[in-house]
Amino acid sequence: MKVTVSRHAHFNAAHRLYRSDWSDAKNNEVFGKCSNPNFHGHNYELIVHVTGEIDPETGFVMDMKLLKNTIKEHVEEALDHKNLNIEVPFFKTVNPTAENMAVMIWDTLRPHIPSSNSLSVTLYETPRNYVQYSGE
Amino acid sequence: MKVTVSRHAHFNAAHRLYRSDWSDAKNNEVFGKCSNPNFHGHNYELIVHVTGEIDPETGFVMDMKLLKNTIKEHVEEALDHKNLNIEVPFFKTVNPTAENMAVMIWDTLRPHIPSSNSLSVTLYETPRNYVQYSGE
Amino acid sequence: MKVTVSRHAHFNAAHRLYRSDWSDAKNNEVFGKCSNPNFHGHNYELIVHVTGEIDPETGFVMDMKLLKNTIKEHVEEALDHKNLNIEVPFFKTVNPTAENMAVMIWDTLRPHIPSSNSLSVTLYETPRNYVQYSGE
Amino acid sequence: MKVTVSRHAHFNAAHRLYRSDWSDAKNNEVFGKCSNPNFHGHNYELIVHVTGEIDPETGFVMDMKLLKNTIKEHVEEALDHKNLNIEVPFFKTVNPTAENMAVMIWDTLRPHIPSSNSLSVTLYETPRNYVQYSGE
Amino acid sequence: MKVTVSRHAHFNAAHRLYRSDWSDAKNNEVFGKCSNPNFHGHNYELIVHVTGEIDPETGFVMDMKLLKNTIKEHVEEALDHKNLNIEVPFFKTVNPTAENMAVMIWDTLRPHIPSSNSLSVTLYETPRNYVQYSGE
Amino acid sequence: MKVTVSRHAHFNAAHRLYRSDWSDAKNNEVFGKCSNPNFHGHNYELIVHVTGEIDPETGFVMDMKLLKNTIKEHVEEALDHKNLNIEVPFFKTVNPTAENMAVMIWDTLRPHIPSSNSLSVTLYETPRNYVQYSGE
Repeated sequence: MKVTVSRHAHFNAAHRLYRSDWSDAKNNEVFGKCSNPNFHGHNYELIVHVTGEIDPETGFVMDMKLLKNTIKEHVEEALDHKNLNIEVPFFKTVNPTAENMAVMIWDTLRPHIPSSNSLSVTLYETPRNYVQYSGE
Repeated sequence: MKVTVSRHAHFNAAHRLYRSDWSDAKNNEVFGKCSNPNFHGHNYELIVHVTGEIDPETGFVMDMKLLKNTIKEHVEEALDHKNLNIEVPFFKTVNPTAENMAVMIWDTLRPHIPSSNSLSVTLYETPRNYVQYSGE
Repeated sequence: MKVTVSRHAHFNAAHRLYRSDWSDAKNNEVFGKCSNPNFHGHNYELIVHVTGEIDPETGFVMDMKLLKNTIKEHVEEALDHKNLNIEVPFFKTVNPTAENMAVMIWDTLRPHIPSSNSLSVTLYETPRNYVQYSGE
Repeated sequence: MKVTVSRHAHFNAAHRLYRSDWSDAKNNEVFGKCSNPNFHGHNYELIVHVTGEIDPETGFVMDMKLLKNTIKEHVEEALDHKNLNIEVPFFKTVNPTAENMAVMIWDTLRPHIPSSNSLSVTLYETPRNYVQYSGE
Repeated sequence: MKVTVSRHAHFNAAHRLYRSDWSDAKNNEVFGKCSNPNFHGHNYELIVHVTGEIDPETGFVMDMKLLKNTIKEHVEEALDHKNLNIEVPFFKTVNPTAENMAVMIWDTLRPHIPSSNSLSVTLYETPRNYVQYSGE
Repeated sequence: MKVTVSRHAHFNAAHRLYRSDWSDAKNNEVFGKCSNPNFHGHNYELIVHVTGEIDPETGFVMDMKLLKNTIKEHVEEALDHKNLNIEVPFFKTVNPTAENMAVMIWDTLRPHIPSSNSLSVTLYETPRNYVQYSGE
């Protein structure tokens, strides 16, 4: 009897899409205004999904307060009000697209979620664009 | 050619998270302010998903009016403006977490959905917390 | 040059609509299922609006972090996960309708907002019902 | 390492649910007010989901600008501000239910999405009713 | 002590923007694809605002159930699943723009709201376009 | 018979809250993590409100297509995917708080709205924080 519990979180950050091994013209051609060297930013809305058996003792798959605090400690503190390209080590060499951010967030959270549970993340970059990653 | 049709519904209820075989201290330790003996409550937003073949005659997987009425009769009438712990028999012995509520709602709806269709439910306890259950 | 700044907050509570000086039949006739003696509850969404001149030094009408903390300390701590009828002194003798809650929240916040600013509150009882009060 | 990228789009259209080989009485019995011969309409909200590997060069599964333009060119231009029954050839012989619209949109987009990616569409007919189709 | 209570309602309708005393070319020039002779449609989201004193006996400005039923009886029944141009008498001679619809809805509701209360309506034609009218 | 028409628009930008005539310590004390020298960013949601008489010929207060294009040309092109502090002249000497942004947007739009109409702007910096300015 598997249930998925989901928790919303939120952070704001600046970024640019950019490869240092490409010319400015190439960056501009592929990434358009998203490659603005002065950066732009987003309100990222994150939804973390944890799937597993309901613990018959508590009625929880996972305590939402714990999940909320785990996201806060490991994701929000690392990304909120940050410049992703400059201040987040993972993006020194990886382009901070929503896709790569979802993978990075999943990798960050995975060790903190019980191994018997599966994990998936949904990341809204804008209200009209979002990505999902389940570690597969 | 399988399509999933989804229908939103809504109900308000009071509840507390609580095990009668635990001390108040233990309930408070595990469930925090959610175990307030005087109850608190939520606007629950329910989404019911039915998956199946499109009926070539009507173009429907399932008539949405019928689905709406089925949810109203079997779920909303049973839970809306109720105290889950006191007035809903299923929760006399089961903790009314969102996880257990999703299972209870799925079990309630399953006999009223054609057996050739699969069923899934999503239940928002708050705009930031929700659960999903598909009967597996 | 007056600007209004608005901040969302959130709390969950149980309540019933009820007058102790009315019979059960009269309470039921006027308040319907909202007068259920076992209570029901809501996710209340609160928006607090503060209007005033922009401080030329900071560019703020009021520091949003301060406004957020003021709402948390004086409103959320008093109402979140509470039974309004039983646990909130103001509602011992006042019916906890959304209208009366908005007035109570406004009265609670007013002393904590600079007197040169005007204050208004919007309170959603459900996603489809809300009230507004500006102290007039 | 598969990621799903999703993009919202929007169009408004008129339609009626109706089979020309049925009597008016039968249409009315099955489709109710949705079979009004003078039509009614909706703001359709479409979400297109594309799943595939992240291109290590760009960090994209698929360029969102390209996906946005593909939806605009092939779906929005064909359906926006149209009468589905009269002006969209596919619905000359197919009832424009949300289910059939999702299949039609999927079939329309499939040739324009790289074959190595899988495609799914979600179509909201109203904020409370939606359907999903993944081509299976 | 004036409070405003607001209630959401919803209806779907078809319409076209069109003046019969203009040529097709003129209609198309001014109203663009909104003048499509085969109609298009919307999910209209209506919010009705009633402002007045709180009744000290009930704690209500106006009973929300009564307001909900008033909107249903006088607005939703008249407009839901209708073709505004063909089936709603008011729009035989008036162009069914959102502006004119708001005025028509306000005029329709005004006699059914206590005269001591003021009335305002907000009408969303799409999630990105809306109008407001207060009878002044 | 005055009606207000409102139109949503959207842009993403990077910024920091900062005064060059203050020390870093003072900036950090007042603006906290919003003064991060590497910038952070937001998805700004803008709603522009225009109030006036309904033109009896068209049924419009103002053509929404024209309003949409005016916002796009004068606001979105100037601010979307920009670094507000570095790339928007107005914010060279003015702190880009939401309050100051609302004033700047109002001042920018005012000359492009008919003088017989009044103008107001609402700017969401995050889904939980927003400001409003009406030029008074």
